[in-house]
Amino acid sequence: MRIHIQNNPKQPEVFNVSPEQWGEALIRAGRSPTGYQVSFGETDGEFTAVGPDVEILISGPGTIKHLLPELQPDRAPKLKFIFAVAAGVDHMPADRMPPVPYLNNRGTHAEKAGEFVAMALLMLAAEMPAMIADQQNKVWGQRFTQGLRGRRATILGLGAMGGAAAEQAKHFGMTVTGLRTRPEPHPACDRVLPTDQLDAVLPETDFLIISAPLTPATRKILNKERIALLPKGSFVINIGRGPLIDQEALCDALDDGTLAGAVLDVFDPEPVKADDRVWTTRNMIMTPHVSVDDAVSYIPRSLDIFFANLAAFETGAPLLTPVDFSKGY
Amino acid sequence: MRIHIQNNPKQPEVFNVSPEQWGEALIRAGRSPTGYQVSFGETDGEFTAVGPDVEILISGPGTIKHLLPELQPDRAPKLKFIFAVAAGVDHMPADRMPPVPYLNNRGTHAEKAGEFVAMALLMLAAEMPAMIADQQNKVWGQRFTQGLRGRRATILGLGAMGGAAAEQAKHFGMTVTGLRTRPEPHPACDRVLPTDQLDAVLPETDFLIISAPLTPATRKILNKERIALLPKGSFVINIGRGPLIDQEALCDALDDGTLAGAVLDVFDPEPVKADDRVWTTRNMIMTPHVSVDDAVSYIPRSLDIFFANLAAFETGAPLLTPVDFSKGY
Repeated sequence: MRIHIQNNPKQPEVFNVSPEQWGEALIRAGRSPTGYQVSFGETDGEFTAVGPDVEILISGPGTIKHLLPELQPDRAPKLKFIFAVAAGVDHMPADRMPPVPYLNNRGTHAEKAGEFVAMALLMLAAEMPAMIADQQNKVWGQRFTQGLRGRRATILGLGAMGGAAAEQAKHFGMTVTGLRTRPEPHPACDRVLPTDQLDAVLPETDFLIISAPLTPATRKILNKERIALLPKGSFVINIGRGPLIDQEALCDALDDGTLAGAVLDVFDPEPVKADDRVWTTRNMIMTPHVSVDDAVSYIPRSLDIFFANLAAFETGAPLLTPVDFSKGY
Repeated sequence: MRIHIQNNPKQPEVFNVSPEQWGEALIRAGRSPTGYQVSFGETDGEFTAVGPDVEILISGPGTIKHLLPELQPDRAPKLKFIFAVAAGVDHMPADRMPPVPYLNNRGTHAEKAGEFVAMALLMLAAEMPAMIADQQNKVWGQRFTQGLRGRRATILGLGAMGGAAAEQAKHFGMTVTGLRTRPEPHPACDRVLPTDQLDAVLPETDFLIISAPLTPATRKILNKERIALLPKGSFVINIGRGPLIDQEALCDALDDGTLAGAVLDVFDPEPVKADDRVWTTRNMIMTPHVSVDDAVSYIPRSLDIFFANLAAFETGAPLLTPVDFSKGY
């Protein structure tokens, strides 16, 4: 099998695949290094030189998007599938994709996402935004807060990341409601409802966790009207995509005290500009789109998911992480 | 049984026992409200009026210390035991205590302590101190961090709070070492060692969690020399008492980058003065001695522990939470 791994030196190192990481993943997968012809590239030329022979491309979504003209049947006739070292496809042009399966690395982010949501839930329950402000102002302002047990978490989007978030919320004794397009039961959720029940669930929500993919159907799904459905003093956490929220409406609700706090890892737009009000919004905790990408395990876990897909492909079984561009995830 | 509950309107409401909370605790304990003669007081006069008849006093440690002259056999001849709505006794004069059992509410703080330590571990692993500073400076500074799985937590003091901390560290997949005077095995610890092994364990520690009582033996137990035994880039969390740490040495190690971060809920002295360097120490997260006191469940849990002790007392069984002033806890 002819595999090409195209890295991008301009992106954070955590997202590039090193030959060492590839070799270790081969061993974990119990595969012989001699079974594949593998090349690594960074420049366009390094890809085009191998394009006519490539059967599998492993790369980041930005690089894949950039290489789309080279990935069409006339230029990459042997291409069998593409494995993206990322989960989101909201920036990928569905109408320009080559006619081969596009697989993502969903699952890679789950554990880190669970840790981040656990941290965010605990920070908000402990009123850390106010305590951080007190520290900055050198104010000894004791606040006694309530723990998470028995409080209500609503998780919008119950994929790998949302499922991990649900497991953490349940671990801390919360009552967990999951919302997803197809509401199958989830072991960590007290109930799973179809996404169209969101408006009915928001008034029963203490902590809203957004971990949905960004699609035309979910863009600004948390708008001003839905924020108004949340109880006064409730909290919002977003690990999905910034445009899932009407950011101006969220900042308004935080600044006027309707919402008690928010932890956002994703924003609209990114990077957040220096003059954006979000930096100084009341009770806002910001992280710069890093919450779910583990500095050490990101590539190893992605490659393990790649090899699980490869095994399915080789045996003719259904691929494990194909993207359905008609759904947007 | 003649029970007196002495509250202190000057202390945070969370630590005072209301008649409603008492009544609810009676019901949870399955006891008849008619079985006891209970009085509530706030002023010295309200206590001295009932002192000669009191058999059980329930109060906070500050108030108990203030009332010590009234609690001696000549003034409170019927006193059978004292139940303190607190765990620490480091401010209590052992040589002036009346000759009756002094019980504390240890166990009350466990779940909240576990939540706080989980939050602190996750915030430090995620480099939140630096991300909070970036937000203040309106800087979009992506940092990709490693999750907690496989990292080494050392917990100094494995009582109710330290045990809950160990359970959270284990939940997140950490390798957990507990240190305590009597090193019995603990289900959440990979190993439990005697406290005198601290120097040997510090070099193998990524996150040091201090949850020990303050005694002559533990005062400044984390001194400059022991901080130097921690690996470069390790972290410190303190939910015990401020004087367990040489605070100046800790701040030095944080400011010079030897330690990568700290989350402190307790300080030396408290409240922290406006000109204390701790407010602005690098990678320091501060909370004002509130980490383990749940705003809702603190008194109910304390009273449940009181009634469990009362049941033991009535049946002549060993009391559950007596303080040994020779040990200091």
